[in-house]
Amino acid sequence: MPELRFNVITKDWVIIARERAKRPDQFALTKKDKESLPQLDPACPFCPGNESQTEPEITRLADKKGWRVRVMPNKYPALSAQGKRTRSNDGLRISMNGIGLHEVIVDHRRHDLVIALMPPEDIEAVLRVYRQRYEECGKDERLEAIIIFKNHGEVAGSSVIHTHSQLAATPVVPFQTRMRLEDAIRFYDQTGACVFCRTMQEELSEGARVLHQSTHFVAFHPYAALSPFHTWIFPRRHTPSFELATDEELVDLASSLKLILSRMYYGLNDPPFNYTIRSIPSRDRNTEYYHWYLSIIPRVTKTAGFEMGSGMYINSALPEESAEFLRGVRVPDPS
Amino acid sequence: MPELRFNVITKDWVIIARERAKRPDQFALTKKDKESLPQLDPACPFCPGNESQTEPEITRLADKKGWRVRVMPNKYPALSAQGKRTRSNDGLRISMNGIGLHEVIVDHRRHDLVIALMPPEDIEAVLRVYRQRYEECGKDERLEAIIIFKNHGEVAGSSVIHTHSQLAATPVVPFQTRMRLEDAIRFYDQTGACVFCRTMQEELSEGARVLHQSTHFVAFHPYAALSPFHTWIFPRRHTPSFELATDEELVDLASSLKLILSRMYYGLNDPPFNYTIRSIPSRDRNTEYYHWYLSIIPRVTKTAGFEMGSGMYINSALPEESAEFLRGVRVPDPS
Repeated sequence: MPELRFNVITKDWVIIARERAKRPDQFALTKKDKESLPQLDPACPFCPGNESQTEPEITRLADKKGWRVRVMPNKYPALSAQGKRTRSNDGLRISMNGIGLHEVIVDHRRHDLVIALMPPEDIEAVLRVYRQRYEECGKDERLEAIIIFKNHGEVAGSSVIHTHSQLAATPVVPFQTRMRLEDAIRFYDQTGACVFCRTMQEELSEGARVLHQSTHFVAFHPYAALSPFHTWIFPRRHTPSFELATDEELVDLASSLKLILSRMYYGLNDPPFNYTIRSIPSRDRNTEYYHWYLSIIPRVTKTAGFEMGSGMYINSALPEESAEFLRGVRVPDPS
Repeated sequence: MPELRFNVITKDWVIIARERAKRPDQFALTKKDKESLPQLDPACPFCPGNESQTEPEITRLADKKGWRVRVMPNKYPALSAQGKRTRSNDGLRISMNGIGLHEVIVDHRRHDLVIALMPPEDIEAVLRVYRQRYEECGKDERLEAIIIFKNHGEVAGSSVIHTHSQLAATPVVPFQTRMRLEDAIRFYDQTGACVFCRTMQEELSEGARVLHQSTHFVAFHPYAALSPFHTWIFPRRHTPSFELATDEELVDLASSLKLILSRMYYGLNDPPFNYTIRSIPSRDRNTEYYHWYLSIIPRVTKTAGFEMGSGMYINSALPEESAEFLRGVRVPDPS
């Protein structure tokens, strides 16, 4: 008998279809003889030496050898940085001009690395740049939501191989963000607790879906994971916004993120994935009712008409089994 | 400058990224030398002669030559038909057993046809079977939402070439359905009007996004279409549920659906797509506040980390241009 599970944070109903369930290792991509990438590709616009091929740099983190992380506007931006925010309500045609930011963050100077394979201190550098951009963009009164995300692999929407992340800052608060905050407030009113903190406590006490615990973070598959290996990394400290993460927390997050992504890399053969940081809009950064987190979705299955017609999901993997599998993946020592 | 548009029915904010916009014809797939399919494939479980390879038939529509449309349980069902609905609330672990229906509807006996290429009377037969199953499933007190959908092409989640649709009936009302009904009720309280009827009126009076009008239906790209060629077909008559569609309406819908899908077929070279019927849960079929419709999403672009992290969308096509393009597609005469 399949099972339906309700995600109390997102309100998603998910069908866990045991009858269709594959064993966790069956989601692994077939081991392709991967083209091994050079450390530097002269044709890559994100490689050192080709800095002039990108839009003018916004900021960088550097050491003696040169830049470590670079940020610039997206060459094909979905939003435009210049101008005043203006809204138009014409009958049911409600619109706004496309003010906002759309930036590219080159995670590393090396062409052949991905987050899973980077030294933790290099991941920490990426996270520090995320936080810095988050803070900076939050000062722009025209902007509401800041979404930091990564697309890895073509299936996950990436068009450039060189490891990079993106930031989009929108002039509106997404409806989904509104809903989730409202629901978290209702949960607080009813229980006196944060629904995120409570979820984390229950995950820790049950343990079956926990992937990793560190001083400051807990990584787990949500009870109602919407697809195989859907992972949440929650900060233990109740903080609404990613920009409030401390240096010490970022060091910890870097190693937690590396651990999870490298288990996926080796256990599932470098699957395409998206990750995103779910944080509160800057204007609300002092709210008591939200709790930021990082979400990872490996793109090992497809959504289709059922999801489109219902907003529900079918997950063909049991989160407890996926977690057991990922916990057991051996990550080779770098040498 | 890009533009943000708000969909008053779904509450989606969509970035219409003009700067990234391709011309409509650039979304067309490259004309592959399509393997031409035989009318009957002896290896296909959905072809006549292989009826014993499927699960036991639930119903069929037949003529002198045999069955025209067949319905049976999905061989790999996401939900199970037998048993009592039971719910469990254990802390934040909220679940329900996976009671429900998951059926396959074989649209046509011929292996080489798709909806776009079928005679209208054969599409009408499919729609009549949809309505019949909708009515039947609505009588089952354990079930709430009935979702009829089609996945066409591998990218859109289809694993069998022979043209077919699916029905899923779930023991819960999806959160998205709840939200949209609530919002439609609020709109009614504020304006005295149905947000769907009002949207249709505005689309007709503006005209730029309208693809087709018939006696009973209007087909258009929503103002805030969430991806290129996203299409809605609304019944003119304010009715909450698809099961209330009349025979005359189904005849009309069959030819409207054929027209739209065949323009996509010829204009975009048989793109993968999903369609779904958005109808109210059976228990609420007497509500005044909903309006059923059919939604089509060609899968010509991908969603990625931005959509995952915000619930917003980026549409790289301008709906007015997409509509102009589709209106101009010449569909060859069958001969």
